[in-house]
Amino acid sequence: MKRLDGWVTAPLGFIAAGVKAGIKISGSYDVAVIYSTVPASCGAVFTQNKICAAPVLVSRKVNQNGHARAIVVNSGCANACTGEQGLLDAESMQRHVAELLTIDSDEVFVCSTGVIGQFLPMGKLLEGINAAVEALDDNGGETCAMAIQTTDTFIKHGVYEGEIGGRTVKIAGIAKGAGMIHPNMATMLTFITTDALVAPGVLQQAVKEAADKSFNMVVIDGDTSTNDSMIVLANGLAENACITSETHPDYVAFLELLTACAMDLAKMIARDGEGATKFLEVNVTGAASAADAKTAAMAIAKSPLVKTAFFGEDPNWGRILCAAGYSGAEMDADKAALSIGGVMLVENGLNCNVPRSELKWIMAEHDISMSVDLGVGSEKATVWTCDFSYEYVKINGEYRT
Amino acid sequence: MKRLDGWVTAPLGFIAAGVKAGIKISGSYDVAVIYSTVPASCGAVFTQNKICAAPVLVSRKVNQNGHARAIVVNSGCANACTGEQGLLDAESMQRHVAELLTIDSDEVFVCSTGVIGQFLPMGKLLEGINAAVEALDDNGGETCAMAIQTTDTFIKHGVYEGEIGGRTVKIAGIAKGAGMIHPNMATMLTFITTDALVAPGVLQQAVKEAADKSFNMVVIDGDTSTNDSMIVLANGLAENACITSETHPDYVAFLELLTACAMDLAKMIARDGEGATKFLEVNVTGAASAADAKTAAMAIAKSPLVKTAFFGEDPNWGRILCAAGYSGAEMDADKAALSIGGVMLVENGLNCNVPRSELKWIMAEHDISMSVDLGVGSEKATVWTCDFSYEYVKINGEYRT
Repeated sequence: MKRLDGWVTAPLGFIAAGVKAGIKISGSYDVAVIYSTVPASCGAVFTQNKICAAPVLVSRKVNQNGHARAIVVNSGCANACTGEQGLLDAESMQRHVAELLTIDSDEVFVCSTGVIGQFLPMGKLLEGINAAVEALDDNGGETCAMAIQTTDTFIKHGVYEGEIGGRTVKIAGIAKGAGMIHPNMATMLTFITTDALVAPGVLQQAVKEAADKSFNMVVIDGDTSTNDSMIVLANGLAENACITSETHPDYVAFLELLTACAMDLAKMIARDGEGATKFLEVNVTGAASAADAKTAAMAIAKSPLVKTAFFGEDPNWGRILCAAGYSGAEMDADKAALSIGGVMLVENGLNCNVPRSELKWIMAEHDISMSVDLGVGSEKATVWTCDFSYEYVKINGEYRT
Repeated sequence: MKRLDGWVTAPLGFIAAGVKAGIKISGSYDVAVIYSTVPASCGAVFTQNKICAAPVLVSRKVNQNGHARAIVVNSGCANACTGEQGLLDAESMQRHVAELLTIDSDEVFVCSTGVIGQFLPMGKLLEGINAAVEALDDNGGETCAMAIQTTDTFIKHGVYEGEIGGRTVKIAGIAKGAGMIHPNMATMLTFITTDALVAPGVLQQAVKEAADKSFNMVVIDGDTSTNDSMIVLANGLAENACITSETHPDYVAFLELLTACAMDLAKMIARDGEGATKFLEVNVTGAASAADAKTAAMAIAKSPLVKTAFFGEDPNWGRILCAAGYSGAEMDADKAALSIGGVMLVENGLNCNVPRSELKWIMAEHDISMSVDLGVGSEKATVWTCDFSYEYVKINGEYRT
């Protein structure tokens, strides 16, 4: 498996484009289309938020068919909390793309990200879709990635290549997301294309498994958006033997490739957390169950006290243990262990009395990992997050709706 | 029922004192003792954190007896993550107080608040206890309250008086807590004294009920400390007919008085949240269950995005609805309603398009209430919190362990 530079057009048979439709006040790219020139399987996971945006409702239906060929996305307006009108607007985006590409409406995923509670500017949007479909080509991957960004400080993309059943397969992805919701610019969006041949139900399973190890392990501020979506299209042009079940010999190789790509994008999202000055990896080991390991790691990663401590470059381990303690995960306080940057600070629940000076250079790093052993089992989990800075408060406090 | 000014010495038969034992670096008051001159019933609730401090382990045992007469507290060192030595130290504090007061050790509650992972300075502490017991009197309530503070910006105390079974009863309380844990100065501590006559098991039940409506409804940053304790002593000197069960005719009157006192102290803690510039009341109505109502209200109150929006005086209602949506509480997005400061902003899930200018004066207030109707039932809950400011990041990021 190797990592390449590139865009969602890297796998065979995918073209894309992004255009400036005037939806974003900044005048930047805001409408994107991704298209598979041949039929493709699809798999997707969406926000669990009970307030979910109209495009999520439309895309959930598309995903039920198992087949899709296009994804249309706009930034600048989330089309969330927009009721019946919002649903009609999302369907109209979908139908318009289908007509232009002469495919079925239910082959088109729809995503929106931006301000909640406002209606889509349909005139500008449909014109933008015309322009984007017109512009679709092999070189459109970069403008496409630009059109899904909101407050991201860098564009998140990655391509992985591997051998599956003796054929070379590429998986490529783009993502956006800085805060889980920034200033109402909702959302984490991820679009992944691959030329692997995978049956629809199997692809759905692989997408779920990959999401659980990547995007579901990232936390910025604990807020889950109304629009989160991860959508994967697999068009089979790599001509590998079709992966028809989870017990198929090539399933594991495909899942590894997909997970690698998704994990890469997920880490980029944590790295680009609003106001982030540090990238933090939280490892929990010694848990009674995998769920407990994740629960404890998430509690640590979400804790404002832990996050502000790292911002202040303070190895304040009491806060980390304390967060594990209130997470609800089973733990043995007298067997718990904790290390930061590989330096053991707590063993059997007791302070190792490491001098602060020994941790100074570790805390000054941009990327810092910490490990907590709960002392009750052998399960583990890893979560990625960022610190909590003045800039986070500034971005989220000074923004005006 | 009326609210009076005063301290924990207001109910009959309670004396108290606080002294400067040199445990706090600042040199401020740091050891306190509260004492009932006659035997008393007790009731208490403690942190649910699995990493709980040694004094909590000791106090839990005391509470099982149902009777206690004294509370000894130190600030400046939490005696948490201190293993077997910590437990011996907490027991030694307890035994020392018992010997000086010639009562049993298991009549003495022990509490500590301060830095995690350090051992108590036992020499200074035992001398401080000598001085505090020596100083115990009717006028010691204020120094006692000062000795339990850490980073609080004001002293939290209150006295309520009411009629119970034809007798005048007083309930008095003091509390500390600014962040749920400030710079490792762990903790919310609350000590309540009353001259009401209440049987031990009934008192325990009343304490639980009162805590659920007060301290358990306050959230600063979602972090739960290792040392949280609420302890109530009831010595019966008001000579009301003993409240012997939850069906006793005076139980409700007692519970109301206790809840009023606890709720007052709880709101003071939210008001004094680290770096707080706003006091926020989150009301959730229309929930399918009381648990759902609390879950949704807590999610809103904990959300860094909601809290930074109020700091920025931005009526960013999308974030509030979104937090309710991901809380896990059942809700109907198409029936949801939301108001801030009594102004309806969302009805039936749709933006009411209230001009921002109409909300400007509401958002500029120090105390702001918001209400969310989940649209699926008739249960409700109220949670108190504060906003999230630069100052929070400064306090928690710049502190050095």
